[in-house]
Amino acid sequence: MIILGIDPGTVKCGYGIISKDENRRENLGYGVIYVPSNLEMPNKLAFIYNEIDNVIRQYHPEECAVETAFYGKNIQSALKLGYARGTAIIASIRSGLMVSEYSPKEVKKSVTGKGNASKEQVNFMVKTLLNLGGKDIPLDASDALAIALCASFQTDTKDKKPRSWTEFVKQNPKIISG
Amino acid sequence: MIILGIDPGTVKCGYGIISKDENRRENLGYGVIYVPSNLEMPNKLAFIYNEIDNVIRQYHPEECAVETAFYGKNIQSALKLGYARGTAIIASIRSGLMVSEYSPKEVKKSVTGKGNASKEQVNFMVKTLLNLGGKDIPLDASDALAIALCASFQTDTKDKKPRSWTEFVKQNPKIISG
Repeated sequence: MIILGIDPGTVKCGYGIISKDENRRENLGYGVIYVPSNLEMPNKLAFIYNEIDNVIRQYHPEECAVETAFYGKNIQSALKLGYARGTAIIASIRSGLMVSEYSPKEVKKSVTGKGNASKEQVNFMVKTLLNLGGKDIPLDASDALAIALCASFQTDTKDKKPRSWTEFVKQNPKIISG
Repeated sequence: MIILGIDPGTVKCGYGIISKDENRRENLGYGVIYVPSNLEMPNKLAFIYNEIDNVIRQYHPEECAVETAFYGKNIQSALKLGYARGTAIIASIRSGLMVSEYSPKEVKKSVTGKGNASKEQVNFMVKTLLNLGGKDIPLDASDALAIALCASFQTDTKDKKPRSWTEFVKQNPKIISG
């Protein structure tokens, strides 16, 4: 099972890809997509879509994991996070990936044991869990790897509902008009 | 010139399509996409993408107009609006449409003369401007038609920057990786 974790934003998007084989988890790749700041918002989203699509074509993940919530007070930041996360979800679901969502607390707890861990703690534990000790991993990328790891632990413990659009449409053919 | 106006949301999305030929503006179609409430968020977005894609295939607009801002206090609503609006933008830009953005004030002012007009006033003026007097148009659809009308008035007065992704990539080929 190959899982893509995404930590989206309209300034930069972290991504991380892991494979899970029984109890063995391995890092396949990670990175940060830097969105050119001179683009208008629609073209920023098109840029993000395109880059995530490239990552999917390169690593062929079967599942994409993103966070659900936004813990902040700024309305405009929430709106922009929505744009970026919506774009990441659409890029994944249109490539046939199952999309799963986890709260920031679930993600932090699953890799550090603490729901309120810092980004640095998450970074440290991600490196430990994936044998990346010597590497200097950007915080956006380690956050994305943590989301992928969280998803990989969940598949152990609960039966996930199918959330792939393709699968869903197969089960509910009438949902498609036109 | 055919313009698609979208008033997106994760519960329902209004859309309206108008043609503009010199000073003549005509209604081509309008409607409301009702998003099944039992879907998980990723499938809601896939549903919205699919329905907007159908509207684009049916009417072949060259431009899509959306609003820019969110005037509200609820963070979760802003996040959800971001998901829906991001999805609408991606569906449009990936079909080669130019995407333009207008503030709610600009939209209201362009059809009613008042930046703080009510939805009902917008509805009334949209019907007047598009000769739809006898019709019972849902408020979500008249909001979308108002956004399309606003875009059609803007093309009269200012040179818009090209915001189509296809066009942008032609001008900046290095932006595409992979």
